[in-house]
Amino acid sequence: MVTSIGIVGLGLIGGSLARRAAARGYEVLAWNHTPRPYEAARRDGIQCVETLEDLAQAKPELLILCNPLKAMPDILARLAPAIDAAATTLSDVGSVKGMVRGQVEQAGLGGCYVGAHPMAGNERSGFEASDPALYDGALWAITVDADTEYRRFLAVARFITNGLGNELIVLDDATHDRAAALISHMPHAVATAMINELCASPERNIAAALAAGSWRDMTRVALTDPNRTRAMIDEDRTNVEALLRSMAARLLAFADDLHCADGLRRDDGLHGDAEAAIAEFFSAGQPFRDFKAQTAQDAQTTQGAAHAVHTGSAESGGQLHETTLDIDPAHWQHELLESAKQGGRITSFAGDYRAAIRRQPII
Amino acid sequence: MVTSIGIVGLGLIGGSLARRAAARGYEVLAWNHTPRPYEAARRDGIQCVETLEDLAQAKPELLILCNPLKAMPDILARLAPAIDAAATTLSDVGSVKGMVRGQVEQAGLGGCYVGAHPMAGNERSGFEASDPALYDGALWAITVDADTEYRRFLAVARFITNGLGNELIVLDDATHDRAAALISHMPHAVATAMINELCASPERNIAAALAAGSWRDMTRVALTDPNRTRAMIDEDRTNVEALLRSMAARLLAFADDLHCADGLRRDDGLHGDAEAAIAEFFSAGQPFRDFKAQTAQDAQTTQGAAHAVHTGSAESGGQLHETTLDIDPAHWQHELLESAKQGGRITSFAGDYRAAIRRQPII
Repeated sequence: MVTSIGIVGLGLIGGSLARRAAARGYEVLAWNHTPRPYEAARRDGIQCVETLEDLAQAKPELLILCNPLKAMPDILARLAPAIDAAATTLSDVGSVKGMVRGQVEQAGLGGCYVGAHPMAGNERSGFEASDPALYDGALWAITVDADTEYRRFLAVARFITNGLGNELIVLDDATHDRAAALISHMPHAVATAMINELCASPERNIAAALAAGSWRDMTRVALTDPNRTRAMIDEDRTNVEALLRSMAARLLAFADDLHCADGLRRDDGLHGDAEAAIAEFFSAGQPFRDFKAQTAQDAQTTQGAAHAVHTGSAESGGQLHETTLDIDPAHWQHELLESAKQGGRITSFAGDYRAAIRRQPII
Repeated sequence: MVTSIGIVGLGLIGGSLARRAAARGYEVLAWNHTPRPYEAARRDGIQCVETLEDLAQAKPELLILCNPLKAMPDILARLAPAIDAAATTLSDVGSVKGMVRGQVEQAGLGGCYVGAHPMAGNERSGFEASDPALYDGALWAITVDADTEYRRFLAVARFITNGLGNELIVLDDATHDRAAALISHMPHAVATAMINELCASPERNIAAALAAGSWRDMTRVALTDPNRTRAMIDEDRTNVEALLRSMAARLLAFADDLHCADGLRRDDGLHGDAEAAIAEFFSAGQPFRDFKAQTAQDAQTTQGAAHAVHTGSAESGGQLHETTLDIDPAHWQHELLESAKQGGRITSFAGDYRAAIRRQPII
């Protein structure tokens, strides 16, 4: 079992991670470029070192890069000669995985690397904003490729589950980055396009006056620092580009259907299937609506079950979705990816090749 | 001054309006098709009548249609022979104004009509969900055309401001419907397209697992009853169609810019202005970001000023944006529309042709 963790970068994400690991009994070493919140970090049981090289040479079993993505090439270049790849597994918490792996391989560190991305964060930044509870209930994505050593994967995975008390799914980089583009990077671009649309309208002040909850919620992410959004989209630009083209095609097809249906009602009789296409536009997302309803219902059932356990009742609805997966050492990457695609999340390891899985509803 | 109000439809919107008007001293008569929440309504001081014709024949000074839009043609056909157009001004609270005016004119009632649309509502429905406080802080749009009689406009406008204690802006139907399409109807279609995009993705379960606040907020409106969304979009379909085409063009242009910028960095040297176009994509909405920041700051200042007044301090920042408008009887429609475009909201009338205006920040 891993007992020592090195953290590069004591910002919101790295600082919270370091504090959570220290609170859970790990030996945590950390380095931060600037500023140096070392006094506060030491009070939380974190051992702080003066240089990045010192951190690598301490040979932590896991060395987790929590620095900004733009600093990654420089950090990796400095780590490469200092790291003992036999003793240390390298990981990171970056929100784009393909690009980071490329940079890690460029630095010659691909052999000791396992990618990771925790779904945790908020609008704040810096060690002073850090909080071990930031990771409460956080899901992690671990990213692997065909060359990833299972023992290194297991070291990271056990640290996340049995160590931090979080759940995880296992993905390849491309799947991760496409999914992240779909639920975050593309929507940020769409929200930005919507406020651009408003600003370009002669009715902009009237529209802003009439705006209510739907507009507020759909444009919220366009109000945050546009440079941060720009960097995020740029790091995943190939996937974002493809999704924007697909979204544009959906919007155009729906616009055409509205146009044709309007013509139909005026009895010029073109395109008899426009009404059917409009109906399809509104029903195609029903599996997601059902998924959200099921997830909300499961959350209630789990609360009810927890309450039942607490009160000594025999009910245990929350256990229904828990299973065990015996992992095939020869095909573990594929097997764990398929499990994730079927809504499975790894909650802990009972042995090197036995994982406890909690199943979510599927779409 | 108007003293008697007729309300057609005691649902969430009509019921709340009837209760607020009754609580503020108006004589309120109401009719509802079905169900008949008359006992509860009478306890709130609302006089309920058995037929729509009875309501019209009671000759309320304002008769406000709060029925569902799909019932509008039938309601208008029944009202036409029963209403005394000399005594009664007809209004409504529909969310699309051009279509309603067309139906009103079709019924021969255009001469006594003034359109209205309160920005109020929630996810609930029916008289049992009604609440006079639903209109607290609500902005109304009043819609007029070249033929609207000023005295009828004034009757509706005074009822809203001096009567209900709300603010209003004055628009033509087309401006209203374009603005409503921009901040509500089009975004609903975009949210629907986003959940369709997710459902069509092989990564849909992984994407749903990784989804956080940005996805939740941007798709929230796609989770509500799709039939309601479909009807809303259909009623404003020409404007929604145009905006969807514009949004699709924005997304495609940005996708092209991402593609070209990617090529540039690989040194194939095409389209040197792609980086500039990307920068423009992220800065074009800055006036809206500034507007939101200013609005939030003004809200704080107003709170501070209210506190200062309360504590006897000399500060009164909240008064800075208040002005008076002397309305030109010959050009009142244009004058009030321009005031709205400049961020002005009518808060009350000091005389027939003198309105108090509160200025909002402009974009």
